[in-house]
Amino acid sequence: METKSEAVNTIRRPVRGAQAPPKAHSERTRSTSFRQVTTPPSAVVYCEGNFAQIDGKTANGLVRHSEAYRILSVIDSTYSGKDSGSVLDDAINHIPIFADLDATVAHQAVVPDTLIYGMAPSTGRLSAVDRGVVLQAIEFGMNIVSGLHEYLSDDHEIATAASERNVTIRDIRKPKPSKDMRLLDGSVAGVKALRIAVLGTDCAIGKRTTATVLARVLNAKGIKTVLVGTGQTGLMQGAKYGVAMDAVPPQFCCGELEGAIVAASEAEQPDVILIEGQGALSHPAFCTSAFILRGSQPDAVILQHAPKRAHRCDFPNLPMPTPSSEIALIEAFADTKVIGVTLNHEGMSEDEITATIAGQSLKLGLPVTDALARPVAHLLAMVVAAYPALTQRPATAAI
Amino acid sequence: METKSEAVNTIRRPVRGAQAPPKAHSERTRSTSFRQVTTPPSAVVYCEGNFAQIDGKTANGLVRHSEAYRILSVIDSTYSGKDSGSVLDDAINHIPIFADLDATVAHQAVVPDTLIYGMAPSTGRLSAVDRGVVLQAIEFGMNIVSGLHEYLSDDHEIATAASERNVTIRDIRKPKPSKDMRLLDGSVAGVKALRIAVLGTDCAIGKRTTATVLARVLNAKGIKTVLVGTGQTGLMQGAKYGVAMDAVPPQFCCGELEGAIVAASEAEQPDVILIEGQGALSHPAFCTSAFILRGSQPDAVILQHAPKRAHRCDFPNLPMPTPSSEIALIEAFADTKVIGVTLNHEGMSEDEITATIAGQSLKLGLPVTDALARPVAHLLAMVVAAYPALTQRPATAAI
Repeated sequence: METKSEAVNTIRRPVRGAQAPPKAHSERTRSTSFRQVTTPPSAVVYCEGNFAQIDGKTANGLVRHSEAYRILSVIDSTYSGKDSGSVLDDAINHIPIFADLDATVAHQAVVPDTLIYGMAPSTGRLSAVDRGVVLQAIEFGMNIVSGLHEYLSDDHEIATAASERNVTIRDIRKPKPSKDMRLLDGSVAGVKALRIAVLGTDCAIGKRTTATVLARVLNAKGIKTVLVGTGQTGLMQGAKYGVAMDAVPPQFCCGELEGAIVAASEAEQPDVILIEGQGALSHPAFCTSAFILRGSQPDAVILQHAPKRAHRCDFPNLPMPTPSSEIALIEAFADTKVIGVTLNHEGMSEDEITATIAGQSLKLGLPVTDALARPVAHLLAMVVAAYPALTQRPATAAI
Repeated sequence: METKSEAVNTIRRPVRGAQAPPKAHSERTRSTSFRQVTTPPSAVVYCEGNFAQIDGKTANGLVRHSEAYRILSVIDSTYSGKDSGSVLDDAINHIPIFADLDATVAHQAVVPDTLIYGMAPSTGRLSAVDRGVVLQAIEFGMNIVSGLHEYLSDDHEIATAASERNVTIRDIRKPKPSKDMRLLDGSVAGVKALRIAVLGTDCAIGKRTTATVLARVLNAKGIKTVLVGTGQTGLMQGAKYGVAMDAVPPQFCCGELEGAIVAASEAEQPDVILIEGQGALSHPAFCTSAFILRGSQPDAVILQHAPKRAHRCDFPNLPMPTPSSEIALIEAFADTKVIGVTLNHEGMSEDEITATIAGQSLKLGLPVTDALARPVAHLLAMVVAAYPALTQRPATAAI
């Protein structure tokens, strides 16, 4: 069993630890240089009954953005035959949704390389139906990627099947051995890049999405930016730097995040490092943002909020905090400042978005925007308003 | 390897999960009732070079208080021949200190049941010298208990040796499978007992010691009190309820602690539940207290502080917080109130203790005492001043 488990995990080890992205398919070009042309492996995202929902956030994130995998299709019988981009964002992305794995494999010329388990249930566990789909994908010869807390590579039936079919299992949340983890040593304070954490008032509220959009627009404007991921979706999407915080023992959380930030700083020498938040600092169950604030020591925070969300995601009895209470909590907990609020517009009309942006901006005395529903220039302006020197650097003359 | 590892872990499983205390030796009495006479297993605490020091806090705690093991002796060659109580607290406890394992075994009529690795280095790892001692103890036929982050039962050499000698390895920090962990569900808010968390301004500062003393005096006064442990030392000492927070993935930290508190409430129906804190809420590296505040939702907090400590334990570059800044942080982070401050008198003379108690009490407007250096009645008075109704319950008429 141990031997098999090691065997199926082999691909992960030599790269960058247990949570490392997959090796891309590579072929040497005919030139004599060492430049390689690489194609990321293809993948189908399994999200039965949850696509475009809160617990489907891994799938939602992957169809919007993926560097580590080429996303071919999504499985969710409730949207069978539709375009995932249309369902999610009202914009066709040519990633179709199929009813089941048979249908999606039949649609492809060759069997896709990978099945990604694209749901993030708060329990972190695999259902009996899902187990059947994972085993079917292994039978097809597909590699498996999972962000569940229950490690599929430790599951006897799944690990045995994977070994027999010679496919790999990548458990995004499986931590490296704790003896290889690092403690905080304070070196993050010496990082030159401006550090901005994107926190939120709840789980699954769009922190990663806003951070991804912000990283893209900053880079497009010549302000070199690296996004440090802290959750399984960001790491599945191919974040080059990061750590799945929920898979790290609390003693090492701050140190491991600091290590990822220092590594990003040294290797990329960016102007800005964005840090993806987790949960909410005020959340009774999920306050990993405490470790994120301590481990990243951010200069600034952007707060993501969903004005129409009635209660904490998955917790009907827990009311949402207000942006102002969350801002006060963040600024009391850490030596940082909130420089703006970004909205998740779930359940809101265009008019409501406009009114909320105006109203909250006035109330909080801070810039407010929506990373998806408003021009990205507004998001950029939020950062530049707080740090005008960013646009005055030589590298950013193009702005 | 897996089979062996399972074999050596067998004793832990049926009891209360991976962190459960050992089964006591038991023998049926000659009466026909089911009452059993139990004797906890005997143990030697290994603490080479660290006894009475900060990183020896596990050994220090065990010689002061242990329900799960009968502590026979301590190993630390720097204090060879001395009494551990004299070294630690200036009060003989008849637990001698030996230079090495050979000497301590030679001193006993029979080989002790257990070797407890009694150090808690911040790295959580086993040194090469320590490895030799663990292997020697296994060779003697002793069971091993460890609170290291590096699980000895996962170490091939140690697990193989343990299997061959048919001894057990108890890794206090080894978590149960995450599929068996619970998320916070809010039930802690319905617990009737008064909940008091003992937090601190640093790691290894005496939170557990103060909580243990307070539990003892409350129970002695007829106020039924249960201490819920959150660290490896408390669990080694035999805490009936608790969870080694550092061994739990962040997603489950609040829920697992809530589960331990609810279990203690249901089984014991206590008047007071004390919750052991971890690290410090302000600590850049170790802020597990964030999870403790969220998971226990305490009515009140007692703050442990060491006035003469120059910097955070193990972090020469990190200054200590003041009690007032830590109190402000705790009360901003959680809906609770700090009802008093307790001192760790390391490096302080009697006069300094007296002066500090008076000065801090005036400055903070709160009761201040020292759980070890001042009468326990003062500690009791701190709680009763905040909750006078505690002494008016029928069960407490004896006060």
